[in-house]
Amino acid sequence: MYSAGISYLIELFDCPPDILDDDVLIGSRIGDAVGHANATLLHQVSRRFEPQGVTAFALLAESHISIHTWPELGYAAIDIFTCGERAVPEQACRYLVSALEAGRHSVRQVERGVGLDENTSKPQLEPSGIVASPVSA
Amino acid sequence: MYSAGISYLIELFDCPPDILDDDVLIGSRIGDAVGHANATLLHQVSRRFEPQGVTAFALLAESHISIHTWPELGYAAIDIFTCGERAVPEQACRYLVSALEAGRHSVRQVERGVGLDENTSKPQLEPSGIVASPVSA
Repeated sequence: MYSAGISYLIELFDCPPDILDDDVLIGSRIGDAVGHANATLLHQVSRRFEPQGVTAFALLAESHISIHTWPELGYAAIDIFTCGERAVPEQACRYLVSALEAGRHSVRQVERGVGLDENTSKPQLEPSGIVASPVSA
Repeated sequence: MYSAGISYLIELFDCPPDILDDDVLIGSRIGDAVGHANATLLHQVSRRFEPQGVTAFALLAESHISIHTWPELGYAAIDIFTCGERAVPEQACRYLVSALEAGRHSVRQVERGVGLDENTSKPQLEPSGIVASPVSA
């Protein structure tokens, strides 16, 4: 069964607000996460919002990583979307859970483009599996 | 029940390969989608890969939109992550399904940070709902 890649949707809770509100630190951590994912960074941007909150994005040869933070809630939403055999997004998950010092977290995996077949011009879509799975920090 | 936002995970199938391989066009369409979402664009980047494929990303005040394409498969994976009451991501979904001329598509909605409570320092996480729902073009 061919799929185009996997999206990891990660929820971090009970993170220190000062970490989540530091755009330089979050930008550094997303860069480190690219390395942990064994991925290739093509473009990176981070932005701090007023009065609080940070968004950081890393465009990869293998798709992308995004981080959006809500310091006032101790919460961050992270997406890691990778394709190809070489990337190891699970390592980036574990790294970010640890690096952003989450007290609790959840990870959902969503397969993308399931049912695509490179040899078929009209691929049949089957319902994509969505799996909630803990990833230990 | 407080949530931080919603991720729409959109799969487009049977798109014309020439559309999916045109980084200028994809970049233009993601910009248009931001408008349809009633969102505020902060940063935009698009990149074409060799021998084929395009990634485009729009950083929003309300989170992000990403598009990754596989022209050889007629397939595109789109993420629209928005927060706040003002954004209308469903309109951006409909627009992109139409603009990229998808023959078939699916949309999954994933609520982010469900169970967060702005008045609670230790929010209780409940399992987030994942709803597969068609969005008519």
